[in-house]
Amino acid sequence: MASQSPPAAAAATRFRTERSERIRFELEKGADVWSMFNPVVFPTAINLGQGFMNWAPPSFILEPTNAESAKRVDLHHYSHPKGRPRLRNAIADFYSPEFRAPAAGNEDRWSPSADGLPRLRQGEARRLDVETEIQVTSGANGGIYSAMGAFLNHGDEVLIMEPFFDQYEAEVRFHNATPVYIPMLPPKDGAVSGVAEADEWKFDFDLIERKLQSGKVKALLLNTPHNPIGKVASEAELGRLAALCIKHDLLVVSDEVYDCLTFDSKSHLRIAAFEGMWERTITVGSAGKSFACTGWRVGWLIGPDHLIGPARAVHTRITFAVNSTAQEGAAIGLELAPSHRFFETQRADYEVRRAALRRALDPLGLPYTNPHGSYFILVDGEGEGEEAVPESVLKKPRDYLKAWFIAKTCDVVAIPATAFYSDEHARFGDRFVRFSFCKDGQIEEAAQRLLKLKQYIRA
Amino acid sequence: MASQSPPAAAAATRFRTERSERIRFELEKGADVWSMFNPVVFPTAINLGQGFMNWAPPSFILEPTNAESAKRVDLHHYSHPKGRPRLRNAIADFYSPEFRAPAAGNEDRWSPSADGLPRLRQGEARRLDVETEIQVTSGANGGIYSAMGAFLNHGDEVLIMEPFFDQYEAEVRFHNATPVYIPMLPPKDGAVSGVAEADEWKFDFDLIERKLQSGKVKALLLNTPHNPIGKVASEAELGRLAALCIKHDLLVVSDEVYDCLTFDSKSHLRIAAFEGMWERTITVGSAGKSFACTGWRVGWLIGPDHLIGPARAVHTRITFAVNSTAQEGAAIGLELAPSHRFFETQRADYEVRRAALRRALDPLGLPYTNPHGSYFILVDGEGEGEEAVPESVLKKPRDYLKAWFIAKTCDVVAIPATAFYSDEHARFGDRFVRFSFCKDGQIEEAAQRLLKLKQYIRA
Repeated sequence: MASQSPPAAAAATRFRTERSERIRFELEKGADVWSMFNPVVFPTAINLGQGFMNWAPPSFILEPTNAESAKRVDLHHYSHPKGRPRLRNAIADFYSPEFRAPAAGNEDRWSPSADGLPRLRQGEARRLDVETEIQVTSGANGGIYSAMGAFLNHGDEVLIMEPFFDQYEAEVRFHNATPVYIPMLPPKDGAVSGVAEADEWKFDFDLIERKLQSGKVKALLLNTPHNPIGKVASEAELGRLAALCIKHDLLVVSDEVYDCLTFDSKSHLRIAAFEGMWERTITVGSAGKSFACTGWRVGWLIGPDHLIGPARAVHTRITFAVNSTAQEGAAIGLELAPSHRFFETQRADYEVRRAALRRALDPLGLPYTNPHGSYFILVDGEGEGEEAVPESVLKKPRDYLKAWFIAKTCDVVAIPATAFYSDEHARFGDRFVRFSFCKDGQIEEAAQRLLKLKQYIRA
Repeated sequence: MASQSPPAAAAATRFRTERSERIRFELEKGADVWSMFNPVVFPTAINLGQGFMNWAPPSFILEPTNAESAKRVDLHHYSHPKGRPRLRNAIADFYSPEFRAPAAGNEDRWSPSADGLPRLRQGEARRLDVETEIQVTSGANGGIYSAMGAFLNHGDEVLIMEPFFDQYEAEVRFHNATPVYIPMLPPKDGAVSGVAEADEWKFDFDLIERKLQSGKVKALLLNTPHNPIGKVASEAELGRLAALCIKHDLLVVSDEVYDCLTFDSKSHLRIAAFEGMWERTITVGSAGKSFACTGWRVGWLIGPDHLIGPARAVHTRITFAVNSTAQEGAAIGLELAPSHRFFETQRADYEVRRAALRRALDPLGLPYTNPHGSYFILVDGEGEGEEAVPESVLKKPRDYLKAWFIAKTCDVVAIPATAFYSDEHARFGDRFVRFSFCKDGQIEEAAQRLLKLKQYIRA
């Protein structure tokens, strides 16, 4: 009888250690930056680390969304995998004027300007086709992942400007493709001294051209306005990038989630709006960044049918559809934002927060970059002291020590910038620390706390 | 000057036709079943097709969730990538007794029963570790996709019982792995005559053993209670599957999203609760199915750290985190369901709906399977007439014609069963059509409409 048999030990399963090849690099990284610098580790700290707001979405969005949720059945069940029609229509109304997309199916003809570069398309705006040119995604994140899955094959290369949003690396490598990092050139030949403007950071076009010689580059993953630099790419820069993308027949996945957050009257320009670019560009947007609802997980992709269709095929099989109530909320936001002058007001509010963070940084005398978009300031912490830190931090580049030191000394959490650099290029980022200013009523207190740094700063 | 140059046509980009290899099969499938049988195509139809409810989540969940959403900032911002602590705790409280998991890190020792099979683990239930053994996902769908991404390499094989939830195929193939389909053996040697009980459908253990000889099978993707058959796997069947999984060192991804929807006092058993299985099983659950909120997109994975950790690494990079308010709602649901006797009441309600659908089918004399779980009835439409149908339908197996005929004749939408079979095995499924009974107040009207079929049914 079984009860009399000696117990047999199960052979330990191979799955105690075996994982897919595609995630090996991810698991070997060790502790990630978000688990080192978080409220559990620094419970009393002012958290200027992760980029989410400490306020709710505006009441003109939240109130009707909650009211609808309370009375409508359909807001609690599957939406169409393309996204709810109301949201797709709101996206088409809001974004169509910014693209002036060529008619569907037409070639995206272009004539070079005097300098040989593609120009911004002119003429009447065509309305985006809500059935074929818009895909609602599980956050911008889920959208970028789906775009990569739809087009990348084993061995393809993807150009990524560095520093970069840390999700990009895995989104490329999980598809067995290879990121090719192009460090942005910092102001004044490598050092930020005093206050630099974000547009003093430059694209390294020479390096881009050299990397294109491999013949394996399939895509450019662009980010403007840029996290964490705050740079808003100029018309000349985007034209030059566009010319290279056309010449080398690259796909562009353009992460423009901070499109509504530009300052100092800087205009955000869309690379898809340049001649010859519509047919090769997927533009990525986000409700979370636009309406202070990062936890809703609603993003979208915009582009021609031949790009959006395959990305949809991937997205539909990953998460099928996106949270329905949150989609309704995002639609309400896009519909009502213009009449509430919401984005204008929000921009002004962020300029006030940026000024507050600058007032906190100026007395320290540490150099930093003044951002023209997004809600981050990159600070050069080169002249700072250090102190005893945990083993996990010691294994990381020295900017982790700086961020740890700031957190321990001042009880203010910021994020070390090499979290946004490849290992290979960590030396370009390890002098910087990123502070976010999407925090109301906390920056003034942070300013007080940061003054403690002064005694440790070497002139 | 540029304006005088003749316009140059851009070379049409390769991305008009080029897609990644991993999605080629998906794009070549043509129109999918959900786009053929939907409210746009059949606007006045009673839709017994797609499996979502026509009622809202219960008010004991929805009211506090909306109230919290209206007043709390954190419900609108990023949750922890693992899932909100409140939800992970609710999952641990609710599910721990069902697993009796061995202590973390311990080997999952087992002693075979008299028949040589693993038995259900006995003894005290251990509480699941909310930091390492639970992962909240973007729907059960996002959870299954992440589990596949974490463990499948190029060329690995995955056993899938057929018919199957149609998302499975892509979730395996997008990771360059190969589904190996095992058709369930229908009642009475291939034909369902009269009313069969769901447990008359049997696993084909001979075929499973033959397929395991390839040496390439890495995982079993199990589904119990089963969609669309409604079969609840028995203790003996799960024991036999468990023995094979241990012998061949397979990973099991067990889709148990209908765990709260079993009828006729059938007990849902979890394969992870068998000796030797905890360490190799990821159990998949769903708020959408449990609480009538398919549009929230909240699911979860439960298993040992060495399986959940890698799945989390994938999920975090795809969608980062799950909608925060919906997670809070799911937590409230799990917390309050026992005191509201919610699942008992819901089961009884579904038994009433199942009876209504059976009363609709019985007068037609078409054979069908009485489900013991889920909310679908699989009907054998073999004796039915056909009529002129669109080209896209004609390209599909003949069950599409049957479903089209039913929709056209009766204005009742059902789903052809080969949507849940591989092309290779379509002949096993092309006599069946799936009706869902998660529709309140519509089944009686559907019954009237379906009577029109009678004249077309050959005895």
